[in-house]
Amino acid sequence: MAAKHPAPAKSQASIPDAPQYTSAGDLVPPVDYRRWIYLTSGLDMSYSAQSSGMSRFDNVFASPAAYSQFVATGHWPDKTILVLEVRGAASKGSINKNGHFQTTNLMGMEVHVRDSSRFPASQYPGGWAFFDVVSRSKATLIPQTAECYRCHQAHGAVDTTFVQFYPTLLPIATQMGTLSATYQADASGNNP
Amino acid sequence: MAAKHPAPAKSQASIPDAPQYTSAGDLVPPVDYRRWIYLTSGLDMSYSAQSSGMSRFDNVFASPAAYSQFVATGHWPDKTILVLEVRGAASKGSINKNGHFQTTNLMGMEVHVRDSSRFPASQYPGGWAFFDVVSRSKATLIPQTAECYRCHQAHGAVDTTFVQFYPTLLPIATQMGTLSATYQADASGNNP
Repeated sequence: MAAKHPAPAKSQASIPDAPQYTSAGDLVPPVDYRRWIYLTSGLDMSYSAQSSGMSRFDNVFASPAAYSQFVATGHWPDKTILVLEVRGAASKGSINKNGHFQTTNLMGMEVHVRDSSRFPASQYPGGWAFFDVVSRSKATLIPQTAECYRCHQAHGAVDTTFVQFYPTLLPIATQMGTLSATYQADASGNNP
Repeated sequence: MAAKHPAPAKSQASIPDAPQYTSAGDLVPPVDYRRWIYLTSGLDMSYSAQSSGMSRFDNVFASPAAYSQFVATGHWPDKTILVLEVRGAASKGSINKNGHFQTTNLMGMEVHVRDSSRFPASQYPGGWAFFDVVSRSKATLIPQTAECYRCHQAHGAVDTTFVQFYPTLLPIATQMGTLSATYQADASGNNP
């Protein structure tokens, strides 16, 4: 993807915590995302009828400025970063005997970035791109042909993001009328 | 408890986001805790062999200043507030078919406060007290005879708190040597 996404000029950040890229065109993973705004967690969520067979939590965080703008407008601003952190789930440990808790096993991380100057809407709906965090200093762009793009575009409640699973944001989007038509069609009679 | 805990003089906050109380001696629930630092989530955790039978997520948040001091020292400072938020868990909804996601159903909230000037360590180990949030403006003190005090004191990994279930803080406490003796005894051969 390097040819399509050469090293950018200086950051055109419209909000703090805007995405930063390496000269090779990779995203620099946000180091401080655990101090960002927590949106939700899921356990073993799956969009196919078949379970993944692994037990893991997904934790989602938004950059504080992006979160504040969502609360104010019901939409994600340009330069939004959402981080999906995948952690191991355990059941027996310390005094816990039932259910699931999160472990120190950080199993993976993905980043969803809205950056319309870098990812033109003609190719990346809404200017959003997904990145896979491969190291502390590098997250590689997931090709636009990947299933995640199609599914987020088809089912995301707001701006191709899964606000239907973010319990503090869904009421805001509902009130502000920013829910996508595709989500509303999904949700009729099947509202999470 | 009003007799023992009359309305305090002016707040003696040592950190921002210090606990605030009403003149009746109740805690004012922190309104902005969803912008605080996320520590962990559990699903249907239970410390007894019997499952609760209800499906719910627990989300834990710390005040930013308390979190920063924990990262720096491995201990919670005086005036720490931890919020436990209980949310409904659903499995089928929108495009999700397996596992569990969090719903907009806010089922309850508890607050753990370290405030040594208000809760003397002779009566409240470490100066910690638990509160049950009964409304947006009121959280009532849970009597010191309640089981939660005994269990946190007996099993909490750090300062009577369940750091063993906070995956980003457990390594810090381990490295800084602030794990409690009782937790270490629990954990020998059974580390979460």
